[in-house]
Amino acid sequence: METLVHPGSGEIALEEKPQTKVKTMKALVYHGPGKKSWEDKPLPTIKAATDAVVKILKTTICGTDLHIMKGDVPEVADGRIIGHEGVGIVEEVGTGVTNFKKGDHVIISCITSCGKCDYCKKGMYSHCEDGGWILGHLIDGTQTEYVRIPHADNSLYPIPAGADEEALVMLSDILPTGFECGVLNGQVKPGDTVAIVGAGPIGLAALLTAQFYSPAEVILIDMDDNRLSVAKTFGATQTINSGLVNAIEAIKSLTNGKGVDVAIEAVGVPATFELCQEIIAPGGHIANIGVHGKSVTLHLEKLWAQNITITTRLVDTVTTPLLLKTVQSKKLEPNNLITHHFRLDQIMEAYDTFGNAAKERALKVILTN
Amino acid sequence: METLVHPGSGEIALEEKPQTKVKTMKALVYHGPGKKSWEDKPLPTIKAATDAVVKILKTTICGTDLHIMKGDVPEVADGRIIGHEGVGIVEEVGTGVTNFKKGDHVIISCITSCGKCDYCKKGMYSHCEDGGWILGHLIDGTQTEYVRIPHADNSLYPIPAGADEEALVMLSDILPTGFECGVLNGQVKPGDTVAIVGAGPIGLAALLTAQFYSPAEVILIDMDDNRLSVAKTFGATQTINSGLVNAIEAIKSLTNGKGVDVAIEAVGVPATFELCQEIIAPGGHIANIGVHGKSVTLHLEKLWAQNITITTRLVDTVTTPLLLKTVQSKKLEPNNLITHHFRLDQIMEAYDTFGNAAKERALKVILTN
Amino acid sequence: METLVHPGSGEIALEEKPQTKVKTMKALVYHGPGKKSWEDKPLPTIKAATDAVVKILKTTICGTDLHIMKGDVPEVADGRIIGHEGVGIVEEVGTGVTNFKKGDHVIISCITSCGKCDYCKKGMYSHCEDGGWILGHLIDGTQTEYVRIPHADNSLYPIPAGADEEALVMLSDILPTGFECGVLNGQVKPGDTVAIVGAGPIGLAALLTAQFYSPAEVILIDMDDNRLSVAKTFGATQTINSGLVNAIEAIKSLTNGKGVDVAIEAVGVPATFELCQEIIAPGGHIANIGVHGKSVTLHLEKLWAQNITITTRLVDTVTTPLLLKTVQSKKLEPNNLITHHFRLDQIMEAYDTFGNAAKERALKVILTN
Amino acid sequence: METLVHPGSGEIALEEKPQTKVKTMKALVYHGPGKKSWEDKPLPTIKAATDAVVKILKTTICGTDLHIMKGDVPEVADGRIIGHEGVGIVEEVGTGVTNFKKGDHVIISCITSCGKCDYCKKGMYSHCEDGGWILGHLIDGTQTEYVRIPHADNSLYPIPAGADEEALVMLSDILPTGFECGVLNGQVKPGDTVAIVGAGPIGLAALLTAQFYSPAEVILIDMDDNRLSVAKTFGATQTINSGLVNAIEAIKSLTNGKGVDVAIEAVGVPATFELCQEIIAPGGHIANIGVHGKSVTLHLEKLWAQNITITTRLVDTVTTPLLLKTVQSKKLEPNNLITHHFRLDQIMEAYDTFGNAAKERALKVILTN
Repeated sequence: METLVHPGSGEIALEEKPQTKVKTMKALVYHGPGKKSWEDKPLPTIKAATDAVVKILKTTICGTDLHIMKGDVPEVADGRIIGHEGVGIVEEVGTGVTNFKKGDHVIISCITSCGKCDYCKKGMYSHCEDGGWILGHLIDGTQTEYVRIPHADNSLYPIPAGADEEALVMLSDILPTGFECGVLNGQVKPGDTVAIVGAGPIGLAALLTAQFYSPAEVILIDMDDNRLSVAKTFGATQTINSGLVNAIEAIKSLTNGKGVDVAIEAVGVPATFELCQEIIAPGGHIANIGVHGKSVTLHLEKLWAQNITITTRLVDTVTTPLLLKTVQSKKLEPNNLITHHFRLDQIMEAYDTFGNAAKERALKVILTN
Repeated sequence: METLVHPGSGEIALEEKPQTKVKTMKALVYHGPGKKSWEDKPLPTIKAATDAVVKILKTTICGTDLHIMKGDVPEVADGRIIGHEGVGIVEEVGTGVTNFKKGDHVIISCITSCGKCDYCKKGMYSHCEDGGWILGHLIDGTQTEYVRIPHADNSLYPIPAGADEEALVMLSDILPTGFECGVLNGQVKPGDTVAIVGAGPIGLAALLTAQFYSPAEVILIDMDDNRLSVAKTFGATQTINSGLVNAIEAIKSLTNGKGVDVAIEAVGVPATFELCQEIIAPGGHIANIGVHGKSVTLHLEKLWAQNITITTRLVDTVTTPLLLKTVQSKKLEPNNLITHHFRLDQIMEAYDTFGNAAKERALKVILTN
Repeated sequence: METLVHPGSGEIALEEKPQTKVKTMKALVYHGPGKKSWEDKPLPTIKAATDAVVKILKTTICGTDLHIMKGDVPEVADGRIIGHEGVGIVEEVGTGVTNFKKGDHVIISCITSCGKCDYCKKGMYSHCEDGGWILGHLIDGTQTEYVRIPHADNSLYPIPAGADEEALVMLSDILPTGFECGVLNGQVKPGDTVAIVGAGPIGLAALLTAQFYSPAEVILIDMDDNRLSVAKTFGATQTINSGLVNAIEAIKSLTNGKGVDVAIEAVGVPATFELCQEIIAPGGHIANIGVHGKSVTLHLEKLWAQNITITTRLVDTVTTPLLLKTVQSKKLEPNNLITHHFRLDQIMEAYDTFGNAAKERALKVILTN
Repeated sequence: METLVHPGSGEIALEEKPQTKVKTMKALVYHGPGKKSWEDKPLPTIKAATDAVVKILKTTICGTDLHIMKGDVPEVADGRIIGHEGVGIVEEVGTGVTNFKKGDHVIISCITSCGKCDYCKKGMYSHCEDGGWILGHLIDGTQTEYVRIPHADNSLYPIPAGADEEALVMLSDILPTGFECGVLNGQVKPGDTVAIVGAGPIGLAALLTAQFYSPAEVILIDMDDNRLSVAKTFGATQTINSGLVNAIEAIKSLTNGKGVDVAIEAVGVPATFELCQEIIAPGGHIANIGVHGKSVTLHLEKLWAQNITITTRLVDTVTTPLLLKTVQSKKLEPNNLITHHFRLDQIMEAYDTFGNAAKERALKVILTN
């Protein structure tokens, strides 16, 4: 195996006896429900020919990470480095990697794709037989200095020269999620009336990418006036504070009683999925993005004859190249989603801020290594 | 207005004083829950320029008619003639009808389409603003000698010379329902594994039309061994008696644990919709056909990440011309669905037979006028 | 038949002897190649129950009208009133018309649709068995004061209160043509690189509506710098004057040698279709809009292995309701296409202006009645 | 590197000095236009970690091979082993291959796919940046004893236990070509009328796979009565000998003057593409499969208003897994295409037979190693 020069560990280290000393880096580590620490971890190394090791330049925190910290994702082991988003510089590649080389700037996809199983061949990378969502989940993730990326050729995306790299952190997860699970599955088309239930980062990502298709109306529904006012600046044509008014009546009023063509669920609780069912027009699409912890009631006694379509999806990130083109051509400006900046070593503070998103008016935080 | 010669009333009647005597016909009439009678009703007349009056040649009884008789469809008024299927001969047309003339043999669609509202223009005839399912529901239906068909140009279909008219009764409702709500919405494609839950007439209609797309496997699930053996003769590659074995385990066993690509719900109760959720593979389609009286539990806590699609639909009968071509070319043989024959005036007996379908081994009954 | 009160002819007329006096209006009439006149013609009347008579408020001249005047459309008879675009007020409706009533403001579609033939049911109104493009072609058209519209329910579209009616004249033909034949058939999607060959009104209509789908690049190719500079203001990201530079090389240079995802032909001559073939990337779509008078050479010796799709289409105007929503929601601003205004009785002058479009920098002219 | 035991070279060879002796095999080698020989060639070895070496069990000859032999494919170098179809047993795999191991029985795809370039990610393997059609073209092919397959994980397909391996040779090229380029691109649907121009092996492959979608009519057009009679046994509902009757008139007569919904070109000369244009109905699809050496005339002067779609495609073999399922479930019986059998060392004779296909009544020949 070739020697991996670990930047950040210092050249002096190499003058010592590297074989007797493990190189370390700092990482955000999960230690069971409610416990996380910013601690030393060994630097990752190439384990398979198709791996790459990427030096993190920028990473962020996802709502899913908060769930992990609460213990809601039991398959995350004690000791796991969290995080599944980021941009970085390729530090080393395995012998089987041909799309990337050391020094390349890359977007790290939250989904790992082998490119050669049945699911990957169908573009359903989320269910890759040797990948899917594993980063910061089943293997160590990105809230650290270096990360090993399996199946790098199909799981990293090259950053064009001159791109706003910070903005591209939003392409790791949040924008493909809003776009694929919400907008594409919802089949938004020109002239449509779209309702997005939930104006958090994911709902806003759906809002931004829904506008690729020129809907006539995009109505955001949330209980947080700050988020709704952000939604307005992001292109929402109407906003409804469902804590203050009856959202069903408000939607009916805005749509001459017809309901909406597309309802995008971006919260993940029974009440919001219920709302989607109440406001959907005959022939409409309900696109679920939310991560649900409980079952919901499906009103087939009313909907059986309404010609509706309901979709679920774990993001495949199959649209990352498309999204990159829209960012490069300024059709999409992801940095609007970024509200806070921290140094990577301030990550505990960043978690506090993101964990109090409403109070802190936080959408996405950027952590710079 | 041309004189309407009412067959069945006899030419002699015309020699009497027609203006003082209402012409009558026999009809199956609903009189509230549990009450129906075969009684005299006035002959229908043209009320709008786009109407036709059709003499019924053959009609049938639908499971929905049994529901009406039980009182499950409260908007059906006392005195309503029931029935929404049949073939017949055009007896008279309004001045606005151009596709048909007296003497034409026609299929009567269960769905009335005006052809000029927003829904009809989108091919969603089921939600026609001046039609939809109204026959034998909101207006008088087909279990009688003559029926008025509104918007005849868009709601009747011409029968080609030499066709097997009895078989075409299956094109009024059951075959487009199985095909549109089950097969098209389920997106059955060559090589797929399809499960159809319910081997009643609708499930069998889905089975027949699913084979248009050459799935590798079509698995029928029911609790009635007779229906399952019929399903075998109709092309089912596997059958599962869910009263005898655990259907979920049986499906998993048949699919190497993956589940099915398409699950078609053809019963309309929570347990069968639940089964569809248990057996669907990631990326799969659940197509609901069943008429549900109760809400169901949707397991978003499992399905949110499974990339599945759930559809509902009231049949639009937009595929009737396509189905007619498949019948004419022998790709579809609808008369296999017909198990019993009666004269129209034996309809009370026919209801008894159809109402005891399991015992009588009845699928569809034909009533000949 | 009810009496048709012809507004403009005055109520006093009715006190005279209407049966002895034909009401007249002014109209632009074709009298063989090179000959047209602004002359008296009888007012149109309801001929079928599904007809409407519409008083023209605003109309325009199409490039096709210039072709007719040259004699290129031989099926246009001497004496025919020309024109197939416009907005107006419903003056009278036949007894079979239910979507409209006297006084309604309407967009007149260039395509007449019966709503009940096989083609109309498939949304292919252009090939309607009792319609299609007949206005100002096989029956009298819109460059006059009143026009009879057959199959009014399916061939007129209601104008919402408060709409900019002048802008909506662009929805009669040019915008659905650019959108359906160019953008929809070309399958423009977010991030695409699109080339539009021809920056005349139709090419610009394709440019405006292509942006519904957020392509990364829309490159306009023409030989007229004025039109190209207009294209820039309409959203073209690049323009190429193919009279000054080699367009093929320019496109290759802009696309890293790959070619474009979508090439829209909006001229109608062999050279521009040839160009589309030269610049299309593997997997790309060539969408023809142009009206061709000659056959072209298709380079199957190169293209057979390039996985491309070529489409042709006579506009169906099936997207008029969608386009109306995009206008109402300001996603589309059609009045940018309007460069000149005339009174209807100045139509001969308007033809001169439009006939010298390059010199006059004319796109679409509006004629107000 | 592990030792490659070359079956066929015998264990005794290993007892000699293998390092001083190149192992050889027999192969069909191209030596310039008109020259081929069955000669010794070195055994292939693993060159990249993603390679596999496959021992050929069965291979065949393609019409393209005849073109190569004539010199029509100039990029084929002197010394190249020809052939791009076959089934075999994996002999050795590179360290990067994970889907296959020594001893696996596999279908060799005619298209090599890397699985990680932009084209492969879009399912357009034919344009793979490190693959595409290279076997027996740019690298050595399958008409020999052993073949090296680059990107084996994405370019080989596992053969299920018990399958008819001979039949699966048809899945290397001919069946995916007929299916993808003809049937899928032509969008054949239930009830359609389909014409296939050319009843050679590719046209027959289109015929077999068109029936996946239950068209009402499939009309085969050819000048060879033998092939047409074969087409009848393969499911053609009508055949037309275009050498004896006017095919255009015959099609018009069979379709009430309307033309066909789908026309599949399976010859590759201007006359047959011309015929497709003459017989296509408005709204129809012309799907080109033929390999064209000359440009053709496209009649846009007629077709511009006919709403037609023309497609070209080099087979992607993206449907191989689907086709394999249809073979396993007996929806497709590819061995009907096999007319002649030879031993691999009789390949010169097999070329003679296949080169005189009409006289020999040959469709596909099987060569067994």
